[in-house]
Formats: sequence, structure tokens, C-alpha cells
Amino acid sequence: MINRLLLGISMLFLVFVSCKENPKNKSTGATVSELNEAVGNSKLGNHPSLILTKKGVAEIRKNLGKLPLFDASLAEVKKEVDAEILLGIDVPIPKDYSGGYTHNRHKRNFLILQKAGALYQILEDEKYGKYVKDMLLQYEAIYKTLPVHPKTRSYARGKLFWQCLNDSNWLVYVSQAYDCIYDYLSEEERNNLETNLFRPFADFISTGNPQFYNRVHNHSTWGNAAVGMIGLVMNDEELIQRALYGIKNANLDPNAKDNDGGYINKNGKAGFLANIEEPFSPDGYYTEGPYYQRYAMYPFLIFAEGLQNVRPELNIFEYKEGVLLKSVNALLNLSDADGEFFPLNDGQKGMSYYSRELVTAVDIAYEHGNNDPGLLSIAIKQNQVLLDDSGFAIALGVKNGNEKPFNKKSINLSDGPEGKQGGVGILRNENLELVFKYAAHGSSHGHYDKLSFSLYENGEEVLQDYGLARFVNIEQKGGGNYLKENKTWAKQTIAHSTIVQNETSHFTGKYAIGSKHHSELFFFDDANENIQIVSAKENNAYPGTQLHRTLALIKDEAFSKPFALDLIKVTSDKKNQYDLPYYYFGQIMETNFDYKVESSLKPLGKKNGYQHLWKNASGEIKAGHLLFSWFHKNKFYAINSTSTGNDKAILATIGANDPEHNLRNDPGLIIRREQTQNTVFASVIESHGTYSPVSEFSVNPNSAVKSIQVVFENKEFTAVQIKTQQDKEKLFILNTISSDKTKKNTLSIEGKDYQWVGPYTYTNK
Amino acid sequence: MINRLLLGISMLFLVFVSCKENPKNKSTGATVSELNEAVGNSKLGNHPSLILTKKGVAEIRKNLGKLPLFDASLAEVKKEVDAEILLGIDVPIPKDYSGGYTHNRHKRNFLILQKAGALYQILEDEKYGKYVKDMLLQYEAIYKTLPVHPKTRSYARGKLFWQCLNDSNWLVYVSQAYDCIYDYLSEEERNNLETNLFRPFADFISTGNPQFYNRVHNHSTWGNAAVGMIGLVMNDEELIQRALYGIKNANLDPNAKDNDGGYINKNGKAGFLANIEEPFSPDGYYTEGPYYQRYAMYPFLIFAEGLQNVRPELNIFEYKEGVLLKSVNALLNLSDADGEFFPLNDGQKGMSYYSRELVTAVDIAYEHGNNDPGLLSIAIKQNQVLLDDSGFAIALGVKNGNEKPFNKKSINLSDGPEGKQGGVGILRNENLELVFKYAAHGSSHGHYDKLSFSLYENGEEVLQDYGLARFVNIEQKGGGNYLKENKTWAKQTIAHSTIVQNETSHFTGKYAIGSKHHSELFFFDDANENIQIVSAKENNAYPGTQLHRTLALIKDEAFSKPFALDLIKVTSDKKNQYDLPYYYFGQIMETNFDYKVESSLKPLGKKNGYQHLWKNASGEIKAGHLLFSWFHKNKFYAINSTSTGNDKAILATIGANDPEHNLRNDPGLIIRREQTQNTVFASVIESHGTYSPVSEFSVNPNSAVKSIQVVFENKEFTAVQIKTQQDKEKLFILNTISSDKTKKNTLSIEGKDYQWVGPYTYTNK
Repeated sequence: MINRLLLGISMLFLVFVSCKENPKNKSTGATVSELNEAVGNSKLGNHPSLILTKKGVAEIRKNLGKLPLFDASLAEVKKEVDAEILLGIDVPIPKDYSGGYTHNRHKRNFLILQKAGALYQILEDEKYGKYVKDMLLQYEAIYKTLPVHPKTRSYARGKLFWQCLNDSNWLVYVSQAYDCIYDYLSEEERNNLETNLFRPFADFISTGNPQFYNRVHNHSTWGNAAVGMIGLVMNDEELIQRALYGIKNANLDPNAKDNDGGYINKNGKAGFLANIEEPFSPDGYYTEGPYYQRYAMYPFLIFAEGLQNVRPELNIFEYKEGVLLKSVNALLNLSDADGEFFPLNDGQKGMSYYSRELVTAVDIAYEHGNNDPGLLSIAIKQNQVLLDDSGFAIALGVKNGNEKPFNKKSINLSDGPEGKQGGVGILRNENLELVFKYAAHGSSHGHYDKLSFSLYENGEEVLQDYGLARFVNIEQKGGGNYLKENKTWAKQTIAHSTIVQNETSHFTGKYAIGSKHHSELFFFDDANENIQIVSAKENNAYPGTQLHRTLALIKDEAFSKPFALDLIKVTSDKKNQYDLPYYYFGQIMETNFDYKVESSLKPLGKKNGYQHLWKNASGEIKAGHLLFSWFHKNKFYAINSTSTGNDKAILATIGANDPEHNLRNDPGLIIRREQTQNTVFASVIESHGTYSPVSEFSVNPNSAVKSIQVVFENKEFTAVQIKTQQDKEKLFILNTISSDKTKKNTLSIEGKDYQWVGPYTYTNK
Repeated sequence: MINRLLLGISMLFLVFVSCKENPKNKSTGATVSELNEAVGNSKLGNHPSLILTKKGVAEIRKNLGKLPLFDASLAEVKKEVDAEILLGIDVPIPKDYSGGYTHNRHKRNFLILQKAGALYQILEDEKYGKYVKDMLLQYEAIYKTLPVHPKTRSYARGKLFWQCLNDSNWLVYVSQAYDCIYDYLSEEERNNLETNLFRPFADFISTGNPQFYNRVHNHSTWGNAAVGMIGLVMNDEELIQRALYGIKNANLDPNAKDNDGGYINKNGKAGFLANIEEPFSPDGYYTEGPYYQRYAMYPFLIFAEGLQNVRPELNIFEYKEGVLLKSVNALLNLSDADGEFFPLNDGQKGMSYYSRELVTAVDIAYEHGNNDPGLLSIAIKQNQVLLDDSGFAIALGVKNGNEKPFNKKSINLSDGPEGKQGGVGILRNENLELVFKYAAHGSSHGHYDKLSFSLYENGEEVLQDYGLARFVNIEQKGGGNYLKENKTWAKQTIAHSTIVQNETSHFTGKYAIGSKHHSELFFFDDANENIQIVSAKENNAYPGTQLHRTLALIKDEAFSKPFALDLIKVTSDKKNQYDLPYYYFGQIMETNFDYKVESSLKPLGKKNGYQHLWKNASGEIKAGHLLFSWFHKNKFYAINSTSTGNDKAILATIGANDPEHNLRNDPGLIIRREQTQNTVFASVIESHGTYSPVSEFSVNPNSAVKSIQVVFENKEFTAVQIKTQQDKEKLFILNTISSDKTKKNTLSIEGKDYQWVGPYTYTNK
């Protein structure tokens, strides 16, 4: 179906471009000659037309001073650009990696150029047009003779920056600036810029670097958008075609890899449309994860908006059943209570929907997505809008008081082009958020952590996903690029809260294997507001071993707050050692096991991430279950977990074999089960109490759980009993074979019969 | 002078109590018979008179609904008390340490009783009177037969709580409740309560525990106030005398010590007046430090208010030249930008002027201290007032818009009864706050850290003082009491940023020695708003060695923000090893020295706190100076420090030999200079840059300092040169012998003559 749609659009374009006849365009009803006339117009001084439009600018000018949110953003941008104009133009010869001066200067230049262009249109003040023109001419002057960037680390070196990716960023922004001052320039100036700067620039990042451009990857999305946007402004059909469909006959080696270890192009797909097609699931989840989805959103949406404005007959926002707009909704749901994105795969913590990319995404999604009033409440938090038609639409909506809360609820987002490669499940219950990853590998930015999870409360991490090992744009730390600990630690399975078998990462940490597989959803059920639950299986991470994890956020009056239930069933064809890590924060309060603290700390292992863990202490869990409680930022937490009687608890700290101190020294608890074939790990994780350092009172400082144990287990059912301090007994039973929501299940445990419908029940014992 | 005042007041009291004649009272002009008449009245239904007064209650009732701050506090208290009344009364048999149920319940009871009493008076609703009465009768019923508390850890076990201290808390609060419902009770009920509960309670914590009661210590202050307040309500002159002057002829062993290792009573002083006299300096600094000053403020001020109301002729707020009111100002100045107290000595971080004790202090200081409008702005932040005459006064001031900002500036607070035992200097410049401790030992809660400092920015710690090793009221951690690591780590010198000689703590960590000495102020100068500076000497911490530290916050256009200059001159009669630790937070960004990371971590030493430091790495500082930069919470920091060429840098983490995980695993940098006799350490500490994880831009990520070196040194002068990245050369010269602010100094360095007036100059080279 999707492929047919793609084919249809391709056909339309072929017709549009080359056909001599005059068939009706199916979407718009316009004839090609009418369209050609429109194209012709865009050549004849019809700018701006790309992001700002002539009609939009007229509306904006008419309403200046009337829409507070727009006026505030305009004032902010004006202040910023005016300050830069005062500083004077600097177009330095490129020299540095990310974070260095020339990198930062060129980055700042393109951001300011785009803003100055918008100011020129909105304020009709020539100073902004002149500033853009002057800087562009300086770029033109150096570009002709500029060699490839002197830093050699990238598989696709740029000219202004150390990688083509950043050069593409530049062109995406500068295309907009050029569009805004197009009519301000003389024809000769335009010819010079296009001949000496824009066209060679677009060629360099595309035909000059097919290994960068002709991929399905966020890098290429930027490249495609850059080439397409300047193509739209210049009305250069060849560039537009190259943007949408990639370079024909690029003949890339299907086994070549990029710097991150990802395949350059294994299946030959390329171009902007393929980049929408492949990495987005039908639910709008982007396979690399939210951090890169955020990064990619900008070129996706800004180029889509340009296409919508200049080529409305493409109906780009309806492509793949409207996936671009769905992706904005998905991304907003992939953020915690503070709007910060969950750091799945390579994700830098702290990135949020306050970023400029999300301002763009929210504004464009509002304008082109039926004016969803929930987006207005996000825009109000962002307190910033684009200085274009979409920002105007948002500001108008806010002015008219149309906003409604953007309510984040539990959501299941499928992964894979057709939504069949696992996914990400987010459970929400009161102030808790649980993020469960059972997705595809996530391209070159993927980590080896099938069925891992992280837990948040009020936007604060309770059990963390480490995220990436990188300080983006901080030059002191490896030029701001990925650090080697990203591969040796952050990507490894032990860095995540999931099962590690025999101290080896999933898929032995090999991209060639991991990228072929994905986990499978067993079920997701958010129907019962007291029990939000997701369950998935992973059969390929360790050949011969099946992992089945079920996670729930359960609200039960026997507990002061909702708690997380974590149930893992492991089935294997041989005996193994299983490690289950939980990375908490803060200080240990209490354990119910004795442990021996090491007088001299050694790494926990030699490889697969274990070499980065200091082993602080270990002990045997001799009680029927493990209790581990801790205290962080004035909150009390506890894990209660079933034990076989032979389990070990290891207390560890991240940071061994880290000569540059690139890692955060966060603590972890590892539950270790040795010499075991089939087994079940079941844990209750609570945020149960609070402390005030001002009143010095504690509220609920102790776990509500007295014990937890697996009370029944066979091929079909797993049952866990949780006993509270008040001796209330709760039972959770899972049918591990059938996830049929209509199936009637019956099971007798300790002489009592239980009956329920669907894959699980949570009940009093 | 002070002693004479004390004597005068004692005399007055003796006259007042025992004299048969009718001399005029010097302060009030009233005759003793008139006073006796007033006393008689207080017996005859003149309650409330202690904290709430009949006149105050009338004013409050008249203005209900008119003063938003008062009304809001009243509503809040009513909600809290109503909820407790619904829960029902529980007076359990005492059993637990701090944090346990019976401890928390009795603590909650006394807090609620006090509030319910006030509600009874203000709202004239019998339900509150009945609630107080019913609970008091339950206490009466058990108290008669209650044994000493079963937990044995305290040197002075209470009955309701594990220590007399908490029993005293109870009586201080409950005295107020009793006063409020005095007239509501029948004479028989009063007789029963006084005979079976209050009088034996007051006796038990005083004559029953002289080792607790008859001291100069915050414990005793609570005891004195408790006995005095119930004495005022009961008009029991014997108790009032015992409160003000202590137990006569208690005959305590002058060498006995309490649980914290402090002497019980070395000089025989006792009673409330002695407790004002001794621990407060004339500036209002309380020798134990701000955390305990906060704790002690409540009994000091609430009993003082009671005395002022019932015995106004005492003029208690003018005692020792108004030191009680000065102490409120001092304490507010001992807080950071968020109102949190600097954790000098034993101080739990997070305690702040939002605590109930400081609401009391601010309200009472406002009412009895000339209505300082700055206090109103603190009260507005507290958003809470006492339900008494002083809270009414505050709410009225706020209602009338009289508040002015409470501007915290640099301040020097002397320590010691006469202000001659060193002190604490706080430097403030823009958003930076530097806290320099050159005080007396600080009684049993003192730490061994002469000339230590900590640094704050916007209320966040940059270089920390560890504070205490204790989780107050958190039962899981040693019953909420002091942990042994408080002695083995937190009190040791190496836990603080000051010089440690030969890995031994100041005064060899012995209270008997440390409590005899104090550092000496060299000078404090806040006159130049660009250079806030303090300098002090310590000659006793290491016999034969003189330490002289000078700290400044300097604002200079060559730097993006003010920076801290840290200059330490060490003079000794022999060669030693000197360690200078800085405890930062976050991750190392850059160093200019190579270091070897340990493959297996061992403790840095065996004792004196060193056993608690993991040695992560060490290296030789071969460059002319040390550069050490780090990143924390999106800010960039750096230390540049002079080096002799043979110095070592040690990277360490707190947490070794900590089997219960009682310590925070925070990192530290230690500059080590071995085999050195006389030397100078000079450092520039910068908070120089910021990073946004949302825009991913860094601002000023690099230190502004290119080099720092000692360019001149003799017995009289020390000169340090700081060179910036832009090659600007700055010179700081200190006269280390004369702090005369009018003295003309001249010095020639490298052929250039420098002339200045006063102990220091900061100038271009």
C-alpha cells in the first residue's frame, strides 16, 4: 500500500516534469501547464515562497503588535540578530571540530542568516537584507577555492564543517535566507551566488559525497532537504529530483560502513521520500530514537513545508498516511514530564521539546495538521514561535485562547517501516513514566539493549538509561564527537536494565547481527487505568535463549503510589549466568542481604562493558527475596525482587577503565543468577516515600512490600505473589503463550482457582 | 560589661523573688508589689499570656479575613490539625530512635498540640481545646509510670524520646498549648496535669538530668526553655529561676563528655542566660554553626518572647546588647541564594530559612526588632507566619506593603562570647558566595577545618563543604543519629578545603586541643565592590606551622564572571607534606597534566579521613601551573593553581571503607606538595561558562587563565601573577605581616615599582 503510494507520487513527478501533455493532477485538479505556470512565476520574483510566503508575510505585517507570542519571538530574534550585526560578519577559514571556534561561528552564521532573512521580510528593513547579502557574498568568495575540511575523522568530510552533515545543516537554513532576500538581490548577484556557492555546495554534499547523501539515515535526510530546499528556491528541477529520489546510479558498496559502524547503504534506497518511508513506523516512531528523531525533524518538516508551499500538489504531509505529522505527536509523547526526550539509543540527556527543532515541528504540525489545540499548550511552554506562516498560525491560536492540555498517556509506538519490527511502549500512571524498548536496532545509533526499560517520576530519572557517551559540541571532550566509551560502555547491554547472558552483549554486540533482528510485542494494554502494561519477547539476542519481559505500572490502594512490576521469564537450551542490572541514583538505605565491601576496587569484568564497572561489593541473597532501598533527592525508593536462594547481588559503580573520565560515576545494582537454564525474575520497584530536609520529617520511608515470590510456573503460566507489610497478598498471573485478550484463562494455585479473561490478571490472593 | 549586665539581671531577679521591700524595678519603674500583682493576675485566669496574649488574640480575631498571609497560615494549620483530629489521638509507649514510629508520633503530637492550642484561642472553637485537653490527659496518664526510654545510646535518655533533648522539645511546644487552654480546664484538671505531668516532666529533664540540663550547649538551651516556659505558664518561680540560671550546686564532673565527644560542663556555667552569653558572639554568630543555630533559635526566641510577654521588665531582647535579634540577622546571612544554610561543622544540607524555626525567628525578630522591612521579604518567601502576635505583626506589615528586599552582602561574623575567637567571613560578588571559616572549634559539633572555605553560585555548590555524615530522622540510617563516618570522615580536615599537613587533621583531630584554639582574623574588607576579601591566620592547628589564607572574590573585565582567588602561605619549622583538597561536582573536562589512572582502586591512606578516599588517579604537575577544569549541571568550571614543578595532583572519590554506604561518593582534587617547609599555594577558581543541552551551544567553555605563578615572596610580601588567555597580566600583592588599612606599601618586582595603601593590591602588571 505504502509502496504503491510512493510509486504514485513518483509517477506524478515524472509526469509533472517531463510530460508534454496536459493531464489533470489527481490531488489538486490543476493541469501541468498551470503548474508550470506556477513554477514560472516562482522564477519571476515571487519570493519568498519557501517557508515564509508572500501571503503569509502580508498577514504577519498586518498583525504586528497584535499577537503577543509572535511579537515576543520577533523581538527576541531581532535582539539576537541586531547584536550579531553589531559584532560584524566573520566567515573564518574552516579549521575546528564541533565545539571549536570556526565550527561554532559557521553554525551561528547559518542560524543568524535564516533569522535575518525573516526579519528582512517582516520588518521591511533593508539592513537585514544587506546583512544576509554581505555574508552570502563572503561565503561565495571563499567557497570556490575552499578545500575539503582539514579534520579527517568523518567518512564524509564537509567544506565548512568537518562533516557533510553540518554543511547540509548550513544549506537548509541558508536556503531560507536566500529565498527571503531573493528579490532584494540583482540578477547578477543571484547568478554569482547560485553559480559559485549554492549549486556547487549542493553538488558537493550530494554527488560529491554519495556515501553521505544516498542513504536512509538522518545524515542523508539533512542532505536531501538541503539540496531540495535550495532547489526549490532556485527552481532547479534537477536538484529537486535529486532531493526526492536520491542520486541515480550511485553504485555504493553495500558493505561499506560509516563512522558509527552503520552500513552506508545496504539496500540501495535513497532520497527524501525513502527517508520518510524507511525509518518512520506508521505510528511516527523514528527507528534511531527520539534524540535523533528530534534532530531529523527539522529537515523533514521544514523541507516538507517548503514542498507544501511550492509544490502543494505533492501533498507531502499526507505521504505515508500522514506520517510526518504523526511523528510530531510520537516525539512529544517520547518526552518526560519536563519535556525531555527519553535517551533511547544514542541520546544526549537534557534535549527536549524546547529545542528549536521542536518549535519548528510543533508550529508546522499545527498549521498543517488541523490546528490541534494540544499543540498550542506545548507552544505556550516553548514560549517561542517560528517567524513564518506556521508561527503566525500558532500565535493566532494562542491569542484566541484555543489551547488545550497536551495530555501524555500510555502509548505504544511500533517500529519499522511497516510497524512490524517491535516498538517502544511508554506506560504512564500518575507521576510515573516507564519506557520499555523492544524495538529494531535503531540504525547506526542503536544500542544493544532489547527489552530494557527506564523509569521516571515527575520528569526525574528513578532507574536510568545511560544514554550516550558524548558531550555534543563540547570541544574539550573528543572534539564534541562520540567518545570511544560510547561503544565500549554506552552501547553495551550491561549499561541498560535488561538481561545479560554470560557477560556478553545482545547479538554479541555486532551491528551486522543486531540490525537484522527486532523484539516482538506480546501485548500492550492501557485499557485499565489502574494497570498500564506492556509485554514483549526477544528470541534472537542470545541464540537458544528466549527472553520475555512484562512491565506494568500498577495503582493499588495497598501502596502509597503506583509501583512498577517487572517480570522476566528466561527460557534457554542450556545453563547460563544471567545478570539483571538496575541503575539507580543516590545512596543505599537498606538491604536485606549481607555484602562484603571490597577493600580494593577492581573492574567487574574484562569486556562487553563490564570493564567499565567498579565492583564495590557483593553478597548472597539468602532471604527468600531481595530488598534494596535507596534515597535520592529527598525521595525513598525500593526494589524487592524474587530470589532463588542462590542469587548474588553486586553493587557497582560506572567508571573503571575510563582514563579520560568520560563516564558518569553512577551506581548500579546487579542481580546475578549463575548456572541457571530456565528462570523467572520478578521485581516490584517503588517510589514510596519522601523526606523534607527543612521539616526533617520522613513520609513512608519504608517499602510497602514484605515479600515477593514466584508461586507458580509452567510453560503457560507464571504467577507472582506480592505480600505487603500489612500482610495483604496480591497475585499477578501471566499467560506467557497466548496474548489473546478474549481468551478465558483458569489456573489453580495452592488449591485456589483463578479465572480471568486476557493474558494477565492482578488480583487479591 | 556583659558580665555586669548579667549580674544586674540576676540581682534584679533575686530582689524580685525574695525581697520583702518595695524597691523600683530599674527597667520598668514598677514596684515589686506591682509585679507580684501581675504575677498574681497570671494565676487568676489571665491566659494566654506566654506567646499568644489576650491583647494579641483580640487583635487577631478582629482582623480575621483581612490579612492574607495570616489567613493563609491559619487555613493551612487548621487543615493540618483537623486532619490529625480526624485520625484520632495516639500516645504510644515510647520505643524507637529518631525516624521510628513512636518518635515521629510524639514529635508530631507536640507540634499539633501547639497548633491546636492556637486555633482554640483564635477560632474560639471548643473542639481544639478539647483535643488538646484529651491528649494532655493521655500523656498525664502514662507519664507517671513511664520508665526511662528503652534506647540506651544517649548520655541523657528521655522518657518520651530516646534523649532528654527531644523531651525538652516536647515541653517547649506543649507549654504553649497548655497556656492556650489554661482557662478551658478546670482547676482539678490543671492540678492533675501540673502535678502528674508538667512538674515531674520539668524536673526529669533538669534536676533529673543535670548532665544534660546544666551546660552551655544547644541541648541545654532547649532544656532551659522548656523548664522556663512551663514555669511561666504555671507561674512556678522555682522553675523560672532554674531556667534562667541553671541548677544550683549541680556538681558535674568537669571532665565528663557527651555522645558527641564534647565536654558536659567544663566551666560550671549553666542556664538560659549563660546560654545566650557564651555561644553567641556579639555579631550574633552561634559557635556551633548555622545548622545548630537554626535549631537553637526556636527555644532562644520563643522563650525570650514568653519572658518578654510575662516578664517584660527583664528586657530579654536587649540582653547582651540585643544579641538575640542580631543572631537572626546573622543566621539569615549564613544562607545561600536559595535560603539554605551553609553546612559549617555538623550541618545537614538543605536546611533553610523555610524551616519552622526560622519562621519563628523572623516573626519574633520583626515584632521585637523595630519592624525591619527586610524581614518582611523573607516572610513573604516563607509564605507562612506564626499564629500569634508576632505573626500578626508580620502579616500586617506585608498587607501594608512595607517589605523591602533582604539584601545579603559580604559580611564578617566574629565568633566567641566577646567576638575574639576568629569568625566566619562570607564574600558575595554577583551570583557567587564564598564562605570562609576561621572560627573557634564550634563546641561538640565542630569540625577540624581551620581556614577552610566553600564556594556557591546561585545557591548551587561549586566547591563543597561535606557537611555532616548523618541522615537526620531517617531510621534506616543508624536510627537517624550521627553515623560513625561523621567522626572518621566528616569532621576530619581532609574532608574540607584547607591545608592538611602530613595527612594528619588539625589539632590531631582531638577535641580537647581544638576546643582551646581559634584562628585569627588578619583583615576583612568589603569596601571595594569589585574586590571582596578576607584573610586569616591559624597558628595552632599544627604546632610549629603557621597557615595564612586569603580569599577574594574579584570582578575584573578580563573575566566573564567574578572569580575566586585563593592564596595560602605556609611557614613551618620543618619540612612537611601539604595536601590541599578541592571537592567539586560533575565530570572532569580537561587537565594540563598527565595522570595515571589506577586499574585497581585503593584507599588514599589509613586514617584521619584518608581511609575514606578512593585514589582514582595521580600525576605530576610538570607545567608551571595546574589547570583542572570540570563540567557540572551545564556549567564549566576551572581551577588554575601555582605549582612548584614537583607537585602532584591526586584524583579521589569519597566512599572507601564505608561498609554501610553512609557517605556520598563525591569527587575531589588534591594538590599535594611533599618535602616542603615554607610555601605558597595560589589558585584562581572560575565558573566561566555554560552549556545548553537544548541548543547544544557552549558559552565560554574554556578558562580565561593562561597561567598563574608566584612572582615574589619574602617575609613581608607575597605576589601572584595571573595571565589571561589574551595575555593580560594581573598582579595580586599581599602584605602578610601588616593588615593596617592606612599603611603605605611599596614593592619592586621585576624592576617595576608598585605602591599601594592597605594590606593588598590587585592591579595590572
